Amino acid sequence: MRGWRLGVAAELEVVPGGVTAAAGFLAGAARCGLRKPGDPRPDLALVVSEGPAAAAGVFTRNRVQAAPVQVTREHLRRGRLRAVVANAGVANACTGERGLADARRMAAVAAESLGLAGPEEVAVASTGVIGAYLPLERVAAGIREAASRLGREGGAEAALAITTTDTRPKEWAVRLELEGRPVTVGGMAKGAGMIHPDLATMLCFLTTDADVAPAALREALARAVDRSFNMVTVDGDTSTNDCVLALASGAAGNPPLLPGTASFDRFAAALTGVCVALAREIARDGEGATRLIEVTVRGARDEGDARRAARTVAASNLVKAAVHGADANWGRILAALGRSGAAFDPSQVSVRLGGLVLVAGGCGAAFDEAEARSLLQRDEVRLVIDLGAGTAEATAWGCDLTADYVKINASYRS
Amino acid sequence: MRGWRLGVAAELEVVPGGVTAAAGFLAGAARCGLRKPGDPRPDLALVVSEGPAAAAGVFTRNRVQAAPVQVTREHLRRGRLRAVVANAGVANACTGERGLADARRMAAVAAESLGLAGPEEVAVASTGVIGAYLPLERVAAGIREAASRLGREGGAEAALAITTTDTRPKEWAVRLELEGRPVTVGGMAKGAGMIHPDLATMLCFLTTDADVAPAALREALARAVDRSFNMVTVDGDTSTNDCVLALASGAAGNPPLLPGTASFDRFAAALTGVCVALAREIARDGEGATRLIEVTVRGARDEGDARRAARTVAASNLVKAAVHGADANWGRILAALGRSGAAFDPSQVSVRLGGLVLVAGGCGAAFDEAEARSLLQRDEVRLVIDLGAGTAEATAWGCDLTADYVKINASYRS
Repeated sequence: MRGWRLGVAAELEVVPGGVTAAAGFLAGAARCGLRKPGDPRPDLALVVSEGPAAAAGVFTRNRVQAAPVQVTREHLRRGRLRAVVANAGVANACTGERGLADARRMAAVAAESLGLAGPEEVAVASTGVIGAYLPLERVAAGIREAASRLGREGGAEAALAITTTDTRPKEWAVRLELEGRPVTVGGMAKGAGMIHPDLATMLCFLTTDADVAPAALREALARAVDRSFNMVTVDGDTSTNDCVLALASGAAGNPPLLPGTASFDRFAAALTGVCVALAREIARDGEGATRLIEVTVRGARDEGDARRAARTVAASNLVKAAVHGADANWGRILAALGRSGAAFDPSQVSVRLGGLVLVAGGCGAAFDEAEARSLLQRDEVRLVIDLGAGTAEATAWGCDLTADYVKINASYRS
Repeated sequence: MRGWRLGVAAELEVVPGGVTAAAGFLAGAARCGLRKPGDPRPDLALVVSEGPAAAAGVFTRNRVQAAPVQVTREHLRRGRLRAVVANAGVANACTGERGLADARRMAAVAAESLGLAGPEEVAVASTGVIGAYLPLERVAAGIREAASRLGREGGAEAALAITTTDTRPKEWAVRLELEGRPVTVGGMAKGAGMIHPDLATMLCFLTTDADVAPAALREALARAVDRSFNMVTVDGDTSTNDCVLALASGAAGNPPLLPGTASFDRFAAALTGVCVALAREIARDGEGATRLIEVTVRGARDEGDARRAARTVAASNLVKAAVHGADANWGRILAALGRSGAAFDPSQVSVRLGGLVLVAGGCGAAFDEAEARSLLQRDEVRLVIDLGAGTAEATAWGCDLTADYVKINASYRS
């Protein structure tokens, strides 16, 4: 699975598809008028497990939590789900009691349309403008329509239905063998602006046919999110609606995965691989972005420091603007490291851009400016920083800051 | 003194001038070739006290500290200074041992040119590109030239000499009466990008003719900086070079100011007033900015929460871009509050834009969009947030985020 620095040893085969790549999952989408007039994209998605599925979720840590987040947290308590219903256009956040009732109604209509036992088998997710109410009639019609279109081939439409300012849908799937059985892990995600460590307006729905109990799935998901979505940053703002859900159908027929075993670690690595791939897609598709920035910090005192340092550099407006201008302004990288909270001696720091040494011993190296410029003009810009303070390492992803980011965000709502 | 919310009761008369408004201070500037060719601004400034002056300083908390910051910290140990030498163009940061030697040499040349007892009577400050070495011959010539031009009228040129991406120099001065004696407090500052709580690439030099001992001056300065420069944010990046210095000549002849007295509090309020005025100028002049954003948070559990919440809203890229687009996107304000770390119940939050209620009880109010738009198009945009969680209050300042910010920062170095 390409050269991502996952810090995990896993032989993963990338396979086509996303949220319906794993056995036992269907998806469908509909267009029910939640977007601006003229926007041709579907705006409502359903992901459905053909049988009971173990489920786990990770949610925004923002103190302001949208109604669908609150409702989905409740529905996840049993660790089992049958379906996810998600819409774009309206976030159903900051909508008070009416918003909560609307989110519950979405789950109820989905449960009805799918012939499930009850609304608590359905997770709800919304993304879009904060503060507006959902047009419930249209949403209900959309849910029924999406339910009538469910299929294995519905994943791509579902991935499109959850996009907002994204310029493209984001899907990924991998296959591995666990105790002689082929197991698939796939997923779809949306998110472009407001992406930041601790999640942000991003949604991600993961599915697998592995047999894994809810508690073990929670553990694998926490590990995967920590290394992927919690290390991606577009603009420092976190959202009220973020949610990563994982559903496991068990259709692969593997012996149930138990934490502490090699098979579980390999499964968690596959889940991490899909999440990192989707997180990179989100960073690359940051609002107005033209480049993916990958920041690896090595030689940190501990993992916390490595994560803090990598995320601070990837999130720095000045670093992002310099990358956009293809300017190897390494002073901004050192300044960002210096305020990150990570412990280090500035005279021990080195910084590499791809293979080019920009900083050694805390001072500027004599590098070729033209080569630096050409490395900064690539689609993927890789910075490797060594703090010289220990052995811990972490990687964060971000994107360049462009005039288009400002244009998009000065006019998103109105 | 206009309607700034300083939280202090002080009758201050605004007077012309800046760093030489107080008795006993002279300033001079020179152009010695540290800027890009064609830039007509002077690039070297001297501020000189005619006699010994009490001195205090506050410095960047960035772990990477420029050579002049390290040298000035040493020179400040005795709490006395006679002069400040500052240059623009080259930050002398990340320059190792050679940079330290260069900063010491700047102090030595200034001491020589001014006939002082030694270099430890001189503070050094630099701002500009990180990682470049100072052209010492030119700097020394500039110091000598500036020393030959010292005068009371030199403050304006000095204020211009320390600017970088600033669009205008920043000076401010006030007068008050302390125990029957007129006392003046004035200052100059620079800083446009990389401004953030805990300081950033900003320099500020304050002077007063008040008689105040070094320890008391330190206390007054700490109070002033906490309410002003530590509450202004342009882009979240902090710098390696920030420094706020205060010099007190004692020429006013007032009885020495002692902490805990009413006179000391009035003096500290005046110093705070000048710092707030300069901090607001810095925010208003943020790179590419067209508007000043003032965020007051009330009803916080404690002052720490109020400060955190105000700074997080003022620093949010999404809020800043929405203000630029004159879009009353209050959801972004709530999302920023929610990740600020401040404790509150979302259903108790209200948000006002000028006199217009945008949010009440955590939900959107029925406000007039046209009126909101017109309020957001003013030079100064005032947001007042009530968290409904207590009685503490704080104010932060920022600016809108524009496409010009990106342009400026994509091409600053090259």
